Amino acid sequence: MDLKTPDHQNKTLTDVQSQQDSRRLDIDRVGVKDIRYPIIVRDRSRGQQHTIASINMYVKLPHLFKGTHMSRFLEVIAEYDEAISITSLPNLLEKIQSRLDAEEAHIELAFPYFIRKVAPVSKASALMDYQVEFMGVLDGDDYRMTMKVMVPVTSLCPCSKEISDFGAHNQRSHVTVSLQFNKFVWVEEIIDMVEKNASCQLYAILKRPDEKFVTEEAYKNPKFVEDMVRSVAADLEKDSRVSWFKVESENFESIHNHSAYALIEGGQKEL
Amino acid sequence: MDLKTPDHQNKTLTDVQSQQDSRRLDIDRVGVKDIRYPIIVRDRSRGQQHTIASINMYVKLPHLFKGTHMSRFLEVIAEYDEAISITSLPNLLEKIQSRLDAEEAHIELAFPYFIRKVAPVSKASALMDYQVEFMGVLDGDDYRMTMKVMVPVTSLCPCSKEISDFGAHNQRSHVTVSLQFNKFVWVEEIIDMVEKNASCQLYAILKRPDEKFVTEEAYKNPKFVEDMVRSVAADLEKDSRVSWFKVESENFESIHNHSAYALIEGGQKEL
Amino acid sequence: MDLKTPDHQNKTLTDVQSQQDSRRLDIDRVGVKDIRYPIIVRDRSRGQQHTIASINMYVKLPHLFKGTHMSRFLEVIAEYDEAISITSLPNLLEKIQSRLDAEEAHIELAFPYFIRKVAPVSKASALMDYQVEFMGVLDGDDYRMTMKVMVPVTSLCPCSKEISDFGAHNQRSHVTVSLQFNKFVWVEEIIDMVEKNASCQLYAILKRPDEKFVTEEAYKNPKFVEDMVRSVAADLEKDSRVSWFKVESENFESIHNHSAYALIEGGQKEL
Amino acid sequence: MDLKTPDHQNKTLTDVQSQQDSRRLDIDRVGVKDIRYPIIVRDRSRGQQHTIASINMYVKLPHLFKGTHMSRFLEVIAEYDEAISITSLPNLLEKIQSRLDAEEAHIELAFPYFIRKVAPVSKASALMDYQVEFMGVLDGDDYRMTMKVMVPVTSLCPCSKEISDFGAHNQRSHVTVSLQFNKFVWVEEIIDMVEKNASCQLYAILKRPDEKFVTEEAYKNPKFVEDMVRSVAADLEKDSRVSWFKVESENFESIHNHSAYALIEGGQKEL
Repeated sequence: MDLKTPDHQNKTLTDVQSQQDSRRLDIDRVGVKDIRYPIIVRDRSRGQQHTIASINMYVKLPHLFKGTHMSRFLEVIAEYDEAISITSLPNLLEKIQSRLDAEEAHIELAFPYFIRKVAPVSKASALMDYQVEFMGVLDGDDYRMTMKVMVPVTSLCPCSKEISDFGAHNQRSHVTVSLQFNKFVWVEEIIDMVEKNASCQLYAILKRPDEKFVTEEAYKNPKFVEDMVRSVAADLEKDSRVSWFKVESENFESIHNHSAYALIEGGQKEL
Repeated sequence: MDLKTPDHQNKTLTDVQSQQDSRRLDIDRVGVKDIRYPIIVRDRSRGQQHTIASINMYVKLPHLFKGTHMSRFLEVIAEYDEAISITSLPNLLEKIQSRLDAEEAHIELAFPYFIRKVAPVSKASALMDYQVEFMGVLDGDDYRMTMKVMVPVTSLCPCSKEISDFGAHNQRSHVTVSLQFNKFVWVEEIIDMVEKNASCQLYAILKRPDEKFVTEEAYKNPKFVEDMVRSVAADLEKDSRVSWFKVESENFESIHNHSAYALIEGGQKEL
Repeated sequence: MDLKTPDHQNKTLTDVQSQQDSRRLDIDRVGVKDIRYPIIVRDRSRGQQHTIASINMYVKLPHLFKGTHMSRFLEVIAEYDEAISITSLPNLLEKIQSRLDAEEAHIELAFPYFIRKVAPVSKASALMDYQVEFMGVLDGDDYRMTMKVMVPVTSLCPCSKEISDFGAHNQRSHVTVSLQFNKFVWVEEIIDMVEKNASCQLYAILKRPDEKFVTEEAYKNPKFVEDMVRSVAADLEKDSRVSWFKVESENFESIHNHSAYALIEGGQKEL
Repeated sequence: MDLKTPDHQNKTLTDVQSQQDSRRLDIDRVGVKDIRYPIIVRDRSRGQQHTIASINMYVKLPHLFKGTHMSRFLEVIAEYDEAISITSLPNLLEKIQSRLDAEEAHIELAFPYFIRKVAPVSKASALMDYQVEFMGVLDGDDYRMTMKVMVPVTSLCPCSKEISDFGAHNQRSHVTVSLQFNKFVWVEEIIDMVEKNASCQLYAILKRPDEKFVTEEAYKNPKFVEDMVRSVAADLEKDSRVSWFKVESENFESIHNHSAYALIEGGQKEL
C-alpha cells in the first residue's frame, strides 16, 4: 500500500496519501507491523550473531496528511541488508524521519538471542535462546531506547519446601526485565543479573552430575515469584546506568494450571 | 502456592508468606495469571450470555510482607460460581482487597463475546465472535474500569482503487478500541461505531446476494488504516461519556506478508 | 463466499461454484475453519456445560464440481442454536451431507472443558480447564469419531530424585490422549486415567495442607515422560472399549528451555 | 534430564534410564521438543542463509529400556555448530542412532526462509519470509525425508467478481505444500509453483505502479480456495520427482471472521 511522489515512471497515478485530511486528528503511530527480517546483532562474547527479527516501524502523522507512504519503511530496512543492530537504530530512525517527512519515528525489534551455556559440572556446552526486544524512538533530535530481555529460569517454592517432609515444587519461570539506561548495558549483563537471582538458571545440556547440581542448587535457593522480582529490582536500583526498569516474573506453576505473577517498576520512564 | 493463617487443621505449617521482608520494596502487582473460567456476561439483546474468560488478578503488596496468599484469588472466583460480569467487578475487587489485606486490587477478564449478525440482503443469521476485555482496579474506594473491544472488519485500500483500472485490494482488519467512560457504554455500541466506520462489516453467513452487497459496499467505502482510526476517534471524541480512548487498527494486507497499523489516543487516562 | 442455487431473489447471479471443473481432481477436504461458536456439551457430573468451541467443517468434493457452498456450513451450525454436543455430531454431519450434496462430511470441535476439582486435604473446590477435541467423519452411512483430551499434570524426574541428596526437579506436563472407541467413553474417564498415572494431578485451589500433600505426593511418584505414556498406554490397552489410541506427553522441563516428549500409539485406527 | 553411562567423574550416580522396564511397551517416539537453535540452510540464489530453527528430535525406544538419554540429542546439535542443513540430516540422524543406541531416529526442523522479492514494475527489492519445515527419519539404513513449505499469497474470489458490479473480495491466503521426492526439489521451486497458481503473489515492497499491477493481476486471476489446491496439485502430479504430496490452502476471508480451507493429497506417502 504505497504511493511515492509522482515521477516519470507513473506521473498519472494520483498520490492519494499526500492529499489533505480535514478531520484535524494527528495519528500517534502509523506504520508497518510484524515484518520478519534477518538481522545481525552485537554479541559480547562472539562480536556478532545472526538472528531473525520481528519488526514494527511507525511514525507520528500530522493531522494535515491523509496517509503514510508505507513502502518507504521497507525500503529503509532493505537498505541495511540485514546489518541492523542496536547501534544502528538512531541512524535508521533518522532515515525514517527524512524518508517519511516525520518528526517522530519508532522502531521495535524483537528476536531470539543465543548465548553459549556451559554446564556447571560436566562443562558440556550448547547455545540457549533468550527473547530480546529493542524499542527506539527518535523525536526530533531526541533519541530514547528501551531494552527488554526475557530470561527463563527455575523457581522453587519456599513454602512448599518449608512445609513438606521431602521435595518442593519447582517450575520454569519467565523473568522479563524492561529497562532504559543512560550508559550502555549489555543484554548479557541483564541475563546474568536475573540468573544469579533465580532458584537456578537453565542450561541447554545437562549430564548426570550437572542434573544433580541444578536440582540441589534450586532446592538450596527457594524463591517466591515475589522474591524474584524484588531481588532483581534491588540490583537494578543499585545500577547507576539504569534510569528506569520494570521487572516481571511469571511462574508456570507445576501444581496448578495457571501462573503466579509479580511486577515491580522503578525509576523514571521517558516516553 | 498458598498458606492460610494457621488453624487447627495445620497449626504446625509455618506461614512463610506472612513473614516480613527486609528489602523494603513494594510489589506493584502480584497475583495469578491465565486462569480459564466460565463466566456469564451482560448482553444488550439477550440479557446475558455464557462465555469462557482468561482471568488475571493482582494486588499491590506492601514492602513489609514477604508473600501473597495466591489461593485466595481462586477462592474469590469460585464463590461467584460463574456469575461474574462487568457489574460484579467492583464487589469482586472488594472481596480481593479484604481477603488479601490489600489496598489495591486488579482484575483483567478477556473473553470472546458473541453477537447475532443478520446478513444484509438474505437476512440469514448466526453468531459472530468479538474479543472483549474488562480491566478493573479498586484502589481504596476508588474504582476505575477500562474496556477493550476488538472488532474484525473489511478494509479496502483507497489508493489501490484510485490507481487501478479495476478491482482494489482489501483484507480483514482488526480494529481495537480501549476506553474509559464516566457513564455506561455497551460493548455493542463500540462494535456498531467501528463497523459503520469500516469499508464493510463482517458477517457469519453470507448468501449470494449478500456477497454481492458486501463486495460493492467495501468498494464504495475505501479506507486507509489511517482513515479507520481517525473516523472512529472522531466519533469517540464526540461521545461525552468517554473520558479516555485508544483506537488501533491492524490491516492484514492481502498484498504483503506484514500488517499496516495505526493508533490514535485521546482524552485523559486514569491509571 | 457462497452461491446458493438460483431463486427469485437473485435469479441473475450466476452460480459459479456449481459449474463443472475439468481438472478431474477430487478435493479430499474443503470447507470452513476456525469458526468460534458457543456450544453446550454433555458433562458427567452436571449434565451439561456451556463452553466456546473452535469449529472446522469439511466435505469431500467430487472432481466434477468447481466449488463448495461455504455458507451452508454456517447455516447448519446456526440451526443448532448452540446445542451442539458429542451426541448431535452424527445428525449434524448428515445435515452437512444433504445440504452440501456430499458423500463424506467432517467436523472438528475443540473447546475448553471444565471439571470441579476438590483439594485433597482442605476440600476447597473450583473449576479447572482441560482442552478437549471431538473429530467426527460421516462417510456415506459410516460414522467414525475420534476424541482427544489434553490433561495438564505434574511430573517429577526419577533420575533427579535418585541422584540428588535432596529435592527433585518437577514441572507441568501436558498429557494428550487421542482415542477411538466402540462403546462410549466419558472425557472424565480419560482425565481420571491420566491423573492417576501422573506424579501428581493439578488443582485449581491448594491451601497450605494441600500444598504439603501434592508436594510429597509428587516426590513419592517420580515419572519419566516415558513412564507417563507407558502407564497410560497400558491402561488404554486393557480397556476393551478402546479400538485405537495415541498417548503423548510433553514435559515443560524446569531445568531446560525445551520440552521432553514421548508418544505411544496402539490398536487399529479407522480413517 | 539425563544420565550418561557411568564414568570416573560420577561412577556413583545410578543410571536409572538404562534400567529395564517390565511393561513391555515400545515407545514410538521419545526425545526433545521446541529447541530453538541457529542454523544455516542451503539457498538456491545465495548459496546459504542463516536462520533460526525450532527443532524436535526423537528416537524409537525398545520396550526393554526404561528411559532415553535426552542430553545426547543436544550434544549432537551442538557438535554441528549451527551448520545444520537439509544435506546434513542423514548424517545427523546416524549420529543420533549411534549415540542413543536407537534403530530409528527422527528430526523435525521448522524455520523462516527468506527470498529476495523484486517488485513487478519498480523492481524495488527486499527479503520476504516463508515458513519451511524438514522432517527426516532414519530407520536402520532407510532414510525418508518430507519437506513442507508455507507460501502466503493473494486470493481473489471468482464468485464475488462474477456477481458484483465492481470490485471483488480478496485476502491473504496460506498455501502449504508438503511433499516427498525421489530427486531433489528446491524450496524455491515449490514457492514458484504456488505463486504462479495464486491470484497474485505477495511482495515485501510495492511502489505505486507495483500496487496498480498486483491489484489488476489479482482481479484478472480470480481463484477459489478449491482452484488453488487443484492447480498446485495438478502441477505436482506432473512432476516425476514428487512421490507424495499434500496441498492445503487457508484463505483468511476478508468478508468473514473465519477461514475457507481446502486440501488435496496425492501419490504414495512413505511413513
